[in-house]
Amino acid sequence: MPTPKLEEIAAKFRVPHDKKFRLKDYEPDWAGDKDVPKAERKKFAEKILATSVAELAEAQDRLYASDTWSVLVVLQAMDAAGKDGTIKHVMSGVNPQGCQVFSFKQPSSEELDHNYLWRYWKALPERGRIGIFNRSYYEEVLVVRVHPELAQAERIPDAEIDGSFWTDRFEDINNLERHLTRNGTKVLKFFLNVSKKEQRKRFLQRLEDPSKHWKFSPSDISERGYWDDYMKAYEEAIDATSTKWAPWHVVPADHKWAARAIVAHTIARAVQELDPKYPEVSPEKLEAIEAARKQLEDEKG
Amino acid sequence: MPTPKLEEIAAKFRVPHDKKFRLKDYEPDWAGDKDVPKAERKKFAEKILATSVAELAEAQDRLYASDTWSVLVVLQAMDAAGKDGTIKHVMSGVNPQGCQVFSFKQPSSEELDHNYLWRYWKALPERGRIGIFNRSYYEEVLVVRVHPELAQAERIPDAEIDGSFWTDRFEDINNLERHLTRNGTKVLKFFLNVSKKEQRKRFLQRLEDPSKHWKFSPSDISERGYWDDYMKAYEEAIDATSTKWAPWHVVPADHKWAARAIVAHTIARAVQELDPKYPEVSPEKLEAIEAARKQLEDEKG
Repeated sequence: MPTPKLEEIAAKFRVPHDKKFRLKDYEPDWAGDKDVPKAERKKFAEKILATSVAELAEAQDRLYASDTWSVLVVLQAMDAAGKDGTIKHVMSGVNPQGCQVFSFKQPSSEELDHNYLWRYWKALPERGRIGIFNRSYYEEVLVVRVHPELAQAERIPDAEIDGSFWTDRFEDINNLERHLTRNGTKVLKFFLNVSKKEQRKRFLQRLEDPSKHWKFSPSDISERGYWDDYMKAYEEAIDATSTKWAPWHVVPADHKWAARAIVAHTIARAVQELDPKYPEVSPEKLEAIEAARKQLEDEKG
Repeated sequence: MPTPKLEEIAAKFRVPHDKKFRLKDYEPDWAGDKDVPKAERKKFAEKILATSVAELAEAQDRLYASDTWSVLVVLQAMDAAGKDGTIKHVMSGVNPQGCQVFSFKQPSSEELDHNYLWRYWKALPERGRIGIFNRSYYEEVLVVRVHPELAQAERIPDAEIDGSFWTDRFEDINNLERHLTRNGTKVLKFFLNVSKKEQRKRFLQRLEDPSKHWKFSPSDISERGYWDDYMKAYEEAIDATSTKWAPWHVVPADHKWAARAIVAHTIARAVQELDPKYPEVSPEKLEAIEAARKQLEDEKG
C-alpha cells in the first residue's frame, strides 16, 4: 500500500486557531483510508505507535538533560474514550524519572478554598519533564459548565454564572497557557473524540465483564445522559482555546489503535521539534574535567 | 547450568534486622556463581530482569486498582553506582500513571525552614502508587553526616552535632518508617553497593566520553575524597535502620546487570506478596450495574 503521509494525517486533527471550530467536522470513527484493508491499517498504526514511543524516549532523554523546556500534555475525553490506555501505551517507554502523571478528582475543600486554577498550577511539570494531566483545568469549563452547581461550590464572591462567566474562564485559560508557552512549557492538548455509539458499546463490554465491575460508577451512566450538553461545552471550549501557542488535537477515538498512534506521533514530533540539546560544556568545565581525569589516573589503581 | 535459586540470592542481600551489620560482608562485585561462564550468568540476569518487570507491571495494575497499599522504594548509592539506570530499566514497564519518581537536590530555603523530614513527607506516594526516592531522607544521615556544616544550615535550636544527634535521627527515621508500614506503605530500601575501584573506572569512562561531559560536576571527584567517611556513615545508618518492617537490601552494583536483576526481582516479589486485589463489588453495586446494563440495552442502538 502507499505509505500514508504522517504529517498530513497529524495536521488533519490539529484544530486551526484562526477558523471557527465545529465538532461535526471531526469524525470519531476515522481510521485511515477505507480503500485499504482494516488489518493493514491497524498494523501500520501499531508500527507508528512503536516508532513514536522509541522516538519520544530518545527525545525525552535530551529534554531531561537540557533542563530548559517542559511539556504539558492535557488529555480530555468523555468516559471510556481511552485516556488511561493511551497514557499507558504512549508513555510507558519513557523513563519514569522524566514523566509525571496527574489525575484530578473531585476538588478537596482545601482546593475549593483557592481560585479554580490553583490545584493545576501546583502540578505543572518541572523543566526537563513531561507532565500528563489526565483531565485538567478544562474540566472547569466542561463538567462545571454542564453542572453549574459545581461553580457555586467554588464560592466566588458575587459571581453570576452567565455567558461572560465562561468567556472569562476561557480568557483565564488562554492567558495561563500563554504564560506557560512564553516561559518554556510546550502545551499539547488532546480531546479523545469518541462517539456516543462507541461509548455505549464500551460501557456494555465493561458491564458484561465481571473483572471490570469495580471500575463502574453509576455516575458514568448519568453523565452519559448529558451527552449533548457535554458536546456543546467541548465545542465552545475548543473553539475558544485553540490558540497559535497551544493548539487542540481532536483525535478520532472510536478505534483505540488509531487514537494511540496519532497521540504518540504528535507528542514525539512536538518534543523533537523543541530540539532539546545536551548542555554545552564550558572551557572552565573542560579544564576541571581534565584535572579530574588526571587525578583519577594518578590514583593507585 | 543448574538454575540458581532466586529466593536464596535475594535473601543473601537482605540485611537481617537482628544482627550487627558489616559492610565488608557484602561484596560489591558479586555476580553469581563463578563456576558458570560470565556470559551465561549475564543472560540469566537479563531474563530475571525481563520477567520481573513483567510481573511488576501486572502486580502494579492490581495495586493501583485496590487503592489501599502504596510502595516506597528508597534508592541510595555513591555517584556512578547506577541509580538512574536502575530506575529506567526496572520501572519503565510500569504504567506511568501508578509510578512517581522524586529526585532530591540541595534543599531550598523554604525546605530548610522546616524540619528535615518535611520535604520527604510531602513526596510520599499516594495509595495505589509506587514512589521512588532517588536519594532520600537517608541523605540526612549520610551527606549531612560527612559534612556536618549542612546540619548547621538546618538551624535547629540548640543542636549539638554529636553522637546522639545521629542516633536521634536514626530513631526519627525508624519511627517514620514504622508509621508508614503501619498505615499501608511498604518500604523497600536499596543501597547500590559499588566499589571504589569500579567508581573510578566509571568516572574515567564518563570523563573520556564527550557526550557525557555535561553530567560531570567537580563535586563528583571531591566527594570521592570522602569515600571512607561515606562508607562508615552508610554502615552505621544501615545497621541502625535495618528493621523488621523496613529492611535494607545491599545490592552488589559493580555489575549493572546483576544489580538491576536483584532490584527488579525484589520489588516485584514484594508487590506480589502484598497481594493487592481488584476491589470487590457490593450487592448494591451489582444491582446498579444490572440497571445500567438494561438502560444501555434499551437505548436505540
